[in-house]
Amino acid sequence: MNFKYPNGKRYEPTERDKQHRIKSTKNKNHSYSNRGMTLEEDLNDTNAYYLDRNIAVIHKKPTPVQIVQVDYPRRSAAVIKEAYFKQASTTDYNGVFKGIYIDFEAKETKNQTSFPLANFHTHQIEHMKTVVQQNGIAFVILRFSSSEEIFLLPFPTLHYYWNRMVNGGRKSITKDEIVNNGFPIPVGLQPRLDYLKIVEKLTFKLNEPFID
Amino acid sequence: MNFKYPNGKRYEPTERDKQHRIKSTKNKNHSYSNRGMTLEEDLNDTNAYYLDRNIAVIHKKPTPVQIVQVDYPRRSAAVIKEAYFKQASTTDYNGVFKGIYIDFEAKETKNQTSFPLANFHTHQIEHMKTVVQQNGIAFVILRFSSSEEIFLLPFPTLHYYWNRMVNGGRKSITKDEIVNNGFPIPVGLQPRLDYLKIVEKLTFKLNEPFID
Repeated sequence: MNFKYPNGKRYEPTERDKQHRIKSTKNKNHSYSNRGMTLEEDLNDTNAYYLDRNIAVIHKKPTPVQIVQVDYPRRSAAVIKEAYFKQASTTDYNGVFKGIYIDFEAKETKNQTSFPLANFHTHQIEHMKTVVQQNGIAFVILRFSSSEEIFLLPFPTLHYYWNRMVNGGRKSITKDEIVNNGFPIPVGLQPRLDYLKIVEKLTFKLNEPFID
Repeated sequence: MNFKYPNGKRYEPTERDKQHRIKSTKNKNHSYSNRGMTLEEDLNDTNAYYLDRNIAVIHKKPTPVQIVQVDYPRRSAAVIKEAYFKQASTTDYNGVFKGIYIDFEAKETKNQTSFPLANFHTHQIEHMKTVVQQNGIAFVILRFSSSEEIFLLPFPTLHYYWNRMVNGGRKSITKDEIVNNGFPIPVGLQPRLDYLKIVEKLTFKLNEPFID
């Protein structure tokens, strides 16, 4: 899957290239036809499909940015001249599906045998916990990029393995554990990742406490 | 209420001041004790209160920004050097309250007799419409800053007046119409704007079609 990362292959990563990384990434996003779509692109595509057909209203939240300095050139748009990426206090995706509040985070790993829990941070775990307390549905979508396998893992299951780590256990979930306790999301064309089919079938048990 | 805008009064608005506007605003936010809090600050405060007490999980979405250029200085955080404000495709606030999906936008006006509909844009109206179709609760919180009166207006009511404008009618909702068809939100201390009390009482009718 190296063709997904043309920047890293084509150029020496000089400072100048790094400055232009965002611009290059933007161009890449326009080629929807190849298989090099990221998990985020697949999900945005899927959510647009859901919205189009009145199936659900789910959006990705904007990237949180701490704005420090803004220029106001006369008669043209304000330009942000200095800003920093902030850590998100919630998950990236939320919305409503048939009256149910949906909340999830999506992550991918190049790792082949386990999913590192470093992909999540404490704020996000706490956030999903409160969502479940409010009778919303919280889960994570995990992608193994080398094998292109994608799984939906209900929050209580993630929380179980998170607590195992907090209590001194391993810092990842093994792939076997994900296969056994998660739900595979097949990759399709329309929609690309029909994760709501799983939510629909399993709503009654997605929030159930998980015991290994 | 002019003391709320120290920048506009204390300085001549030179280009240099405009560049520092964000920095100054940040400092202002730290003085929670005075009455100069914006509607956004009051709502963030209220949502933090709800979260603390497990009443609801409602967050403001980050400001959408189109990032164009990022610098990666060695061994320090990435700096966004060029970015632009984007128009939001959804509302600013959403979350879950006792299993109910909540979605709203908050706006204030200095106008004393009516609320200009220019405060909303078509994307937001369309978004709230789809939320109501999915059985979520959508509304707007409107603040008249001169009188400090705050109202919750259910989306179907807003939509009625929006359509009146689209069909050639007035470009605002009169204050009388808001008083008669909205629900006043009293300003308190803890929480500052207890809008969920209204949602709780009126859930059964908040999504009802509005007929003037």
